[in-house]
Amino acid sequence: MSFSAVEIIRTKRDRGVLSDDQIDWVIDAYTRGVVADEQMSALAMAIFLNGATDPEIARWTQAMIASGERLDLSGVGMPTVDKHSTGGVGDKITLPLAPLVAAHGVAVPQLSGRGLGHTGGTLDKLETIPGFRTALSNEEFIDQMRRVGAVVCAASESLAPADRRLYALRDVTGTVESIPLIASSIMSKKIAEGTDALVLDVKVGSGAFMKELAPARELAETMVRLGAAHGVRTVALLTDMSTPLGRTAGNALEVRESVEVLAGGGPADVVELTVALAREMLALAGVDADPAKALSDGRAMDAWRAMVEAQGGDPDAELPVAAETDDVLAEADGVVTRMDAYAVGVAAWRLGAGRARKEDAVSAGAGVEILRTVGETVRAGEPILRLHADAGETARFGAARQVLEGAVDVGGDTPGRTMLIDRIA
Amino acid sequence: MSFSAVEIIRTKRDRGVLSDDQIDWVIDAYTRGVVADEQMSALAMAIFLNGATDPEIARWTQAMIASGERLDLSGVGMPTVDKHSTGGVGDKITLPLAPLVAAHGVAVPQLSGRGLGHTGGTLDKLETIPGFRTALSNEEFIDQMRRVGAVVCAASESLAPADRRLYALRDVTGTVESIPLIASSIMSKKIAEGTDALVLDVKVGSGAFMKELAPARELAETMVRLGAAHGVRTVALLTDMSTPLGRTAGNALEVRESVEVLAGGGPADVVELTVALAREMLALAGVDADPAKALSDGRAMDAWRAMVEAQGGDPDAELPVAAETDDVLAEADGVVTRMDAYAVGVAAWRLGAGRARKEDAVSAGAGVEILRTVGETVRAGEPILRLHADAGETARFGAARQVLEGAVDVGGDTPGRTMLIDRIA
Repeated sequence: MSFSAVEIIRTKRDRGVLSDDQIDWVIDAYTRGVVADEQMSALAMAIFLNGATDPEIARWTQAMIASGERLDLSGVGMPTVDKHSTGGVGDKITLPLAPLVAAHGVAVPQLSGRGLGHTGGTLDKLETIPGFRTALSNEEFIDQMRRVGAVVCAASESLAPADRRLYALRDVTGTVESIPLIASSIMSKKIAEGTDALVLDVKVGSGAFMKELAPARELAETMVRLGAAHGVRTVALLTDMSTPLGRTAGNALEVRESVEVLAGGGPADVVELTVALAREMLALAGVDADPAKALSDGRAMDAWRAMVEAQGGDPDAELPVAAETDDVLAEADGVVTRMDAYAVGVAAWRLGAGRARKEDAVSAGAGVEILRTVGETVRAGEPILRLHADAGETARFGAARQVLEGAVDVGGDTPGRTMLIDRIA
Repeated sequence: MSFSAVEIIRTKRDRGVLSDDQIDWVIDAYTRGVVADEQMSALAMAIFLNGATDPEIARWTQAMIASGERLDLSGVGMPTVDKHSTGGVGDKITLPLAPLVAAHGVAVPQLSGRGLGHTGGTLDKLETIPGFRTALSNEEFIDQMRRVGAVVCAASESLAPADRRLYALRDVTGTVESIPLIASSIMSKKIAEGTDALVLDVKVGSGAFMKELAPARELAETMVRLGAAHGVRTVALLTDMSTPLGRTAGNALEVRESVEVLAGGGPADVVELTVALAREMLALAGVDADPAKALSDGRAMDAWRAMVEAQGGDPDAELPVAAETDDVLAEADGVVTRMDAYAVGVAAWRLGAGRARKEDAVSAGAGVEILRTVGETVRAGEPILRLHADAGETARFGAARQVLEGAVDVGGDTPGRTMLIDRIA
């Protein structure tokens, strides 16, 4: 069946509902280049401003899955459970989480992305490990799950190619922050990758896409319904992203911190979130266990080492260290009451850890180290943040300090931080 | 000054107001290809759905004018007044109107367009006159006004090139029917062409862009304000387009009817609207005269012949005639109470008079002849409409008849038709 792109755009522009056939056609025609980028961006803006119904979002997701192949993970011989985070600052959770879950006999088919703007990317972090390969074939991906359980790599070009093209388009046309478009983008990739079940970490706060609770909840609910509609058991946790996760934002810096968590240490918030997500994933896989134990008894670390080695990395190699540092000092005595996640994320980006465009390179060693975080006492003149930049890049310190202006409050009250805000199933 | 296209799109998307600098930048960058089509179409959709303030529309218009050259018509040595119609079915008014006004010593710098969809184009009509050239240089354009007064030709590529590119983009992205975008598109071209004053014929009804009175009035008011803001005295008439104008819709068919009007005859509605618009144009030029006289005493016809000859055409040549005809008969006795302009326009298009895409050719002879129009008596079995198609194109009759199904009502009441709905100055 053939449709007119203009008719479809006008229907959504005029608050109409697209038929299944119209959605199937427009996604397929866009993938084939018959619908042009300027038509799809007008449609995306109309969806952004006028919304989409649940059946439209479900069909849109299905059409994006149908634009490529859907992996069959039945040969893995284990239950499969994936996790997806909507992105935040210092969010290295995938690194300890995937091996932790795999240590319980559950495979984690983690297809990850790269950082963009103020949020870091899991692949950029793992690639700071000497030898680590993130580009695997579908066969290597499935084989590693069978042998090691955990695998973290880039999504193949054959999964949801319509989403790949649409995501790049939304990035340059101001149509990113739309719940129907975000939900269908995330879920089309996760469903196409073939996972049995999925745990979503939907971030809320200054460092997240969704700054407010209401849209974050709506996004989580939409994705949980989409998972169910496609036979993928899906649970979402709404978690705090007003403060950076842990004490580091930067590529190698975050790998180092992840290894501390796998060794039974690490920052309390990273451990708390890792264990909470692992508990959800294990429950979805039907495994009854306390994942905290596997962090303290070395099983998670063993799975990490196996995963790194399977992907060509050396788990014992030294990680890159940035040559230059610059400390940001406290101006008063007191307790850190606020550490703005967005500002820390932008600072790490400006120091070299992030990228503005997807073709840019990132620094392995650059980033922000948080010496005193929310709830900790500091004295005037003591360092709160340590900025890291590569040799010859000290000019970046000024740009990072600029965005950190007013990002840290030191006062008398110690506010509590609620990491786990809600659970949606 | 440099801006980010995404920031500008997001501002309008989130119902913000664009600054003058942002508007200047985005129009200039789009003209230079720095802002991509997919970004401009997203911005156009955001403007379509969220609107624009009067200062934004004025600046947008100014920026589109500044994307090219603005003609200086001071050397013409006469007052200059142009007319623009928002487009309708059977709207051949420019053909008698331009020479009629020129016959009073007022120059008419008429830059016209081609037909698209169900509406015809003045250039397509004039090109059915053997030898008639519609592509003139700026020098020929100005010289002809000086010598003959009236000139009707295609707009030069150097006038408002941003609008040219944006108009083509809007056509394929479902962003045509936006008052800010229509108003700035029309007015940027008319102001750039250098006219002293302008009369707008804003159509309302089934055959017009604007089917309802309220948006048509808003468009007219917006354009009158835009003209004033740029020093071009502007008056708008809101006129009826529920019924086709005159008795023909088609290229050569409409030229023939226009010549009848110039000879002092022709359909009453065409004469009424031509005279009304001429009266407004002459008043703006400070000429006190009754234009109807120049239709009856041959002065308008003389000006027409001079204009056609100046543009290489032969005013005495035979006009093309379509080889095939097919009559649509009345099914009952009575008075024609409705003749749907949109259906007649689509029928003419399907018969070959119009085009779906701007690169398509049109037939000179094809179209619809209206034998009995609203208010006239007909008997069952008598022809109401005569369809014209080129040799070998009789298959088009079925497609035209299909859209005419239910387009003509014959009944007992004779409704009055109000051609001139309102005047906005």
